[in-house]
Amino acid sequence: MAQNKQLVLKKRPVGLPNKDTWVLIESNIPELKEGEFLIKCEYISLDPAMRGWLNDTRSYIPPVQIDEVMRAGGVGKVITSNNPDFKEGDHVYGQTGVQQYIVTDGKGYHKVDPSLAPLPIYLGTLGMPGMTAYFGILEVGELKEGDTVLVSGAAGAVGSVVGQIAKIKNCKVIGIAGGADKCKYLVDVLGFDGAIDYKNDDIKAKIKEYFPKGIDVYFDNVGGEILDAALGRLAMHARIVICGAISQYNNTTAVKGPANYLSLLVSRASMKGMVVFDYAKDYGKAAQQMGQWMMQGKLKSKEDIYEGIENFHETFLRLFSGEKMGKLVLKVSED
Amino acid sequence: MAQNKQLVLKKRPVGLPNKDTWVLIESNIPELKEGEFLIKCEYISLDPAMRGWLNDTRSYIPPVQIDEVMRAGGVGKVITSNNPDFKEGDHVYGQTGVQQYIVTDGKGYHKVDPSLAPLPIYLGTLGMPGMTAYFGILEVGELKEGDTVLVSGAAGAVGSVVGQIAKIKNCKVIGIAGGADKCKYLVDVLGFDGAIDYKNDDIKAKIKEYFPKGIDVYFDNVGGEILDAALGRLAMHARIVICGAISQYNNTTAVKGPANYLSLLVSRASMKGMVVFDYAKDYGKAAQQMGQWMMQGKLKSKEDIYEGIENFHETFLRLFSGEKMGKLVLKVSED
Repeated sequence: MAQNKQLVLKKRPVGLPNKDTWVLIESNIPELKEGEFLIKCEYISLDPAMRGWLNDTRSYIPPVQIDEVMRAGGVGKVITSNNPDFKEGDHVYGQTGVQQYIVTDGKGYHKVDPSLAPLPIYLGTLGMPGMTAYFGILEVGELKEGDTVLVSGAAGAVGSVVGQIAKIKNCKVIGIAGGADKCKYLVDVLGFDGAIDYKNDDIKAKIKEYFPKGIDVYFDNVGGEILDAALGRLAMHARIVICGAISQYNNTTAVKGPANYLSLLVSRASMKGMVVFDYAKDYGKAAQQMGQWMMQGKLKSKEDIYEGIENFHETFLRLFSGEKMGKLVLKVSED
Repeated sequence: MAQNKQLVLKKRPVGLPNKDTWVLIESNIPELKEGEFLIKCEYISLDPAMRGWLNDTRSYIPPVQIDEVMRAGGVGKVITSNNPDFKEGDHVYGQTGVQQYIVTDGKGYHKVDPSLAPLPIYLGTLGMPGMTAYFGILEVGELKEGDTVLVSGAAGAVGSVVGQIAKIKNCKVIGIAGGADKCKYLVDVLGFDGAIDYKNDDIKAKIKEYFPKGIDVYFDNVGGEILDAALGRLAMHARIVICGAISQYNNTTAVKGPANYLSLLVSRASMKGMVVFDYAKDYGKAAQQMGQWMMQGKLKSKEDIYEGIENFHETFLRLFSGEKMGKLVLKVSED
């Protein structure tokens, strides 16, 4: 029988994870009990939120424990099954963790159909990032037709979908991303109305130029100075969706709070946090709508796929260095 | 004819206002034109928001200009009138400014009845601070029966009313104020469930003790470290009302943004700004309700009244030193 390669948390990082953070181990695959099945995991999802799971602090989900397999969403194929709901050959999505095989009773897993979309898309646009974008911009952001929308991390898995949904809803959409290539991609491929290159542009000046009447909805994936710049240019009754703060996740000093938060008062605006799990009961409806938009060519999905479970650490760092485009995925075993 | 004493803005302050900020001048009272009337101003309102009006920055209201009479709400009596809607002897509230006499066409003025409540109450509980408290906690804070409520600046004109309204709505209410006397007043006189003395208590520890299950609504008048402490203890779906940030108004360095703002995400919470003027059309309804609560003894109003227009500057500083209790009012001329 094949051995299972598993990536295990060894040491909580301070700042960016390093070589000591995780260790790759090999283990035997346990026997199946009644009701269980074995999945061969093919692709796992790499997301900024994973950085938060490494900290031993109160959050929306417990931290990953030392010596525990690193938590991650993944897609794979059922190899053998003692569970009537999941048959050999079925493809499934769930919290597989960063490993090649997993035995489960199926709790938290659902089937996906590789004939409708390639498997990695179920980790991106039709997975958690897509759901986050959908509920974040439409429900938390209370998006209305004609709104002016700013989204940061715009070339990422969440931001790229947020911007495209806002375009579908006839909004003016400006994205913030790092580098000319990503900015060009936002405008030329995804149809954004404009892009701001945070590595080279004067962010405040560009926001002022693009939003002469202020921002109606700001979807924040990054925090830090960009959040402050957006706060400085809100329209009346603006909504800020706090989805993440990638600029702050690896801080070794305190998080930088948004100094311009009193603009909320001046503009009678709101800043609201979200966690996608709260919308779980409506995932199906959202996925159906997003799938339809994809078929119609209105919603494009881009995955950036790397290979090899042994390359997890260096691939993970691309989330924070910005060296990736679209949804970051790691292929952890062969088809 | 009497001369008019007027307090005029001379120099924009950096940090706390000082002796050079305003100057007291004397001027003639202009002749009344058709439709105008003359008010003798008796009491003016001193509010933290006035500090913001001294800065030459974009806000919800234009800044006071150099050589302009300092803006302030006031109550007084109509002395002579060419306006059929306001008769000699009527008492009125409006933006009188810091001066003893004002000629106006009546725009923005409304009548008040000194037989129902003493005039200074129309600057406090039945005036802007009371309206701010009423709409802030009930509408912006979306207060529900049984909520756990934390209010800062709790012995002040706004905070004391916020807390009492929340008690009327059967909520658990904890107030934050400076010093043992104010804390005792909150609990013994106003009926709060507890008080935190920010000058002597460990704020974070006390908040944890008073809110074992987290804060449902935090009404923020102060910003700074207290806002951060509250953010660190939110219940799920908590609402933060941003009414002001008195700890930050006299900063000579940048405003301290709330470093714990990512709790909004963890707790699916919101932080919303408010400006009372947006609720102007409903002031009447609110004043009627508040008046009724006052009659029933459920809502207590406390004014801290100082005398003499020449003492404006030192009285104003009490807003920031905390040396006052309840609504700060200056009597600027004799009855």
